[in-house]
Amino acid sequence: MIDELGRRAGVASRILRTATAATKNAALELAADEVEKATDVILDANQEDMERARNEGVTGALLDRQLLNPERVSAMADGLRVVASLPDPVGSTTAGWVLPNGLKVERVRAPLGVVAVIYEARPNVTSDAGGLCLKAGNAALLRGSSFTLTSNMAIAAVMREALDKAGLPEDAIQVVEDTSREGAKELMTTRKYVDLLVPRGGPSLIAAMEAEATVPFVIDGAGNCHVYVDASADLARAEAIVLNSKTHRPGVCNAAETLLVHQAVADEFLPKVAGSLMAAGVELRGDETARNLVDGIDPATDDDWAKEYLDMVMAVRVVPSLEDAVAHVNRYGTGHTEAIVTDRIEAADQFVNGTDSGVVMVNASTRFTDGGEFGFGAEIGNSTQKLHVRGPMGLEALTSERYIVTGDGQVRQ
Amino acid sequence: MIDELGRRAGVASRILRTATAATKNAALELAADEVEKATDVILDANQEDMERARNEGVTGALLDRQLLNPERVSAMADGLRVVASLPDPVGSTTAGWVLPNGLKVERVRAPLGVVAVIYEARPNVTSDAGGLCLKAGNAALLRGSSFTLTSNMAIAAVMREALDKAGLPEDAIQVVEDTSREGAKELMTTRKYVDLLVPRGGPSLIAAMEAEATVPFVIDGAGNCHVYVDASADLARAEAIVLNSKTHRPGVCNAAETLLVHQAVADEFLPKVAGSLMAAGVELRGDETARNLVDGIDPATDDDWAKEYLDMVMAVRVVPSLEDAVAHVNRYGTGHTEAIVTDRIEAADQFVNGTDSGVVMVNASTRFTDGGEFGFGAEIGNSTQKLHVRGPMGLEALTSERYIVTGDGQVRQ
Repeated sequence: MIDELGRRAGVASRILRTATAATKNAALELAADEVEKATDVILDANQEDMERARNEGVTGALLDRQLLNPERVSAMADGLRVVASLPDPVGSTTAGWVLPNGLKVERVRAPLGVVAVIYEARPNVTSDAGGLCLKAGNAALLRGSSFTLTSNMAIAAVMREALDKAGLPEDAIQVVEDTSREGAKELMTTRKYVDLLVPRGGPSLIAAMEAEATVPFVIDGAGNCHVYVDASADLARAEAIVLNSKTHRPGVCNAAETLLVHQAVADEFLPKVAGSLMAAGVELRGDETARNLVDGIDPATDDDWAKEYLDMVMAVRVVPSLEDAVAHVNRYGTGHTEAIVTDRIEAADQFVNGTDSGVVMVNASTRFTDGGEFGFGAEIGNSTQKLHVRGPMGLEALTSERYIVTGDGQVRQ
Repeated sequence: MIDELGRRAGVASRILRTATAATKNAALELAADEVEKATDVILDANQEDMERARNEGVTGALLDRQLLNPERVSAMADGLRVVASLPDPVGSTTAGWVLPNGLKVERVRAPLGVVAVIYEARPNVTSDAGGLCLKAGNAALLRGSSFTLTSNMAIAAVMREALDKAGLPEDAIQVVEDTSREGAKELMTTRKYVDLLVPRGGPSLIAAMEAEATVPFVIDGAGNCHVYVDASADLARAEAIVLNSKTHRPGVCNAAETLLVHQAVADEFLPKVAGSLMAAGVELRGDETARNLVDGIDPATDDDWAKEYLDMVMAVRVVPSLEDAVAHVNRYGTGHTEAIVTDRIEAADQFVNGTDSGVVMVNASTRFTDGGEFGFGAEIGNSTQKLHVRGPMGLEALTSERYIVTGDGQVRQ
C-alpha cells in the first residue's frame, strides 16, 4: 500500500521540483476556491466522520476539533491563499562564494521530495499541510486519524482536482487510507520513499517515532517552558510576561509551565505574581521557599518540574542564582522555549548561552514561539530537535540546501 | 557502559558550549604540540595494533591505513593546528530581523552537544574528528575499530591531557572501548546522550544505521557520480573533466562512475574520450550504442549503472536527450555529485534542477566535492542525505541553529 503511494509521490515530486512559483500559486488559489465551492460535499463527509466518532464515544473538545462548519471550511481556503501569497523558498541562494580557482559555489534551497505528515483528528491539517508541502515543491503523504478519514479524503479530492486543472500532478497530495498502527509504522520505516516525516501528535506518537522511525523526521515535541525572573528584572514587566506566558493560551506547547524566581527578588515579587496568577485561576505548586512566602501554594514534587501541564497549573521555584536557574532548565526542560526577564546584558547572555533550547526569549513572553509571530506566514510545526531545523518551522523547513558549483573547465590538480 | 560515557560527555558538553574560541584554540594548539611530543608513545601503541592486525590476517592497503609513522603523527598534529586556525562557527548569526512589535529575532549557531563518530581502522580520525568536534563546542564519543583501539586510546589520552591543561573538561574527548557490534548498536540507539552520530564507514555500516539507528545521524553514503556531456559541450573541456573525474583518485566517493554522452556528439566525442580513458588504464563498460562506436568496451548490465566501482572502471551510455540523462541520474544516482559539461545556460539549468543530488558541477570535475576544496578548511564527512546538511560537511555541520528573541516586555495580545 505505502509502496504504491510512495512510488506515485516520488513521480509527482520530480515534476513539482521544477514547477515555478506562479504555477504552484495558481494551484493553491484554485484549490482555495474549489474548497469553498465544495463546502457542502466536505461538510457531508465530515458529518459521516462525526457520527462515527460519536458512536465510538468521542466527546467534548476532541469531538469539537474534528467538526467542520462553513466558517472552518472558509478558514481552510483562506489558509491556502495565505500560503499562495508567501515567497517561494525554492531556488533562493542562502550562501555563495568564489573559490581561488574561479569556481563559483552557491548553496541553494531545493524541495525535499516526499514529505509525510502523521496527524490527529483535525481535518484542516489536510489542507494546511498539503498546501505548505506543495508550495515548497514537495509531494505530500497525509496520514490523519481514522476518525476524520472521510473528511480528509473529501478535502484531498478537491485539492487534487485543483492540482490537475493547474497542470500539476494530482499525486502531489495523497491521503494514506490505512490509518492502522501498522500503517503508521510502515510510513515511519519506508526510507525508500519518505524524505521527511513530520509527526503532529501527542507524546505516544513522538515516543513511537523516537523508538521506531528510520525515515528522517522532525520531532514537534513537548514544551516544558520556563520563565526565569532574575534579580535584575523589572518586576512589573516580569509579572506581565509570567501572566501572559502562563494564561494567554495554557493548552499549547509554548505556554510556560514553571516559574523560576531569583531569591533576591522573591520576597517582593512572588506574593504579587502569585496573587495575579491565582486571581486568573492558576493553581500553583511550589518549593518550600515559595510556599513560605505565599499562602495557598501546594507542594511541588520532582514530577511537577518535569511536567507539561497544558493547563492552568504552574510550578514555582525560588533559585539562589542564575546558574541554578540554568541548571534547573537544563535538567527538566524539553528544549522548546525559555524566557529570562532581566535588565542586565550579562545575565541575558549567561542565560541564553547556558541553556540549550530552540528558542530563548529575553524580556518577552514564551508565547511568541510561533511561525506566524516569527513572520513565517504559516507553520508546519515547531521543532524541538537539534538537527535540520529548530523552533518554528515554516516553508524553509520543508526544503533542503544543495550546492551548485559553476566553472569553466576546472579539474583537480 | 555507554550510559557512563554519555553522561560524562553531556557534562563536558555543557561546559564546552560556553567556552570561548580562544580557549578552544589554545587546547587544540596544545594538543597538537603534545601529540608531536608523544610520538614515541603513540607509535608504540600503534605497533601493538599492527601486530594484532597482522596476527588476524590483515594485509595490504587495509593494514597500511592503520599504520602510523612519525610523518603521519606530524600530519595529525598539523591537522589540529588547521582546525585551531579556522573561524569558530559558534555564536555566528545566520539570520536576523525585527518583528512589527519590536521583537528582535536572531538565528544563531550553537553546538549540537554530544557528537558520536563510528569509524574504521584509521587512527588519524581520532584526532581529526576529536579536534573538529571540540572546535564546534561539542563533546566527542569516538568509536573506532578494534584493530586500532590501542592507538586511538593513546592519541585520545594525549588530547585529554591537553584539554585539562587548557582548562577544558577531559571528557570532551572520549574513546568508546567497546568495539563490538552490540556496542555500535547501543551507540546508534542512545537518543538520551547522542545529539548527532556521524558514521564513517562502508556500505554495511550505512545499512546498519539506516535500519537500526534511532539517534539523529548524517549519512556519508556512496557516491555513484555521473558526468553528462551535453550536445552543446566544449568537447576538449569535456574530455579533461571526464578524465579528471574518473582517474584523479578513483578510490574515493567523488570520483565519477558513469559517463553519459548526448547522442549528437557521441560519434565525435566517444572514440576520443574512450581512447584517453583506456590509455589511462580505465576499463569501460557500455551500452550497445557506445560499443558500436568504440572497440574494446565490455557490455554494461543494469548492475553497472548502479555501481560505485571505486576503481579504474567506468560505465558509458549514449543518451538521446538531456531529459534522458536526468532520468538516468535520478534512477541510478546516490545523491552525491553529478556534473554536466555544456555551453548552454538552459541545459545547465535543466540538469541542475532536474537532478536531486547534494552537489551539481557545471563544467567542473566531480572531484571538487570536498570540504577542503569548498574552503571549509577541514571536513568531517560528506552528507548524501537531505536533512540537516548536504554535501561536504565542515565545522558548521557540527552545529545547530537556535533562535534568540530580545524584547522589552512584549506579551501576546
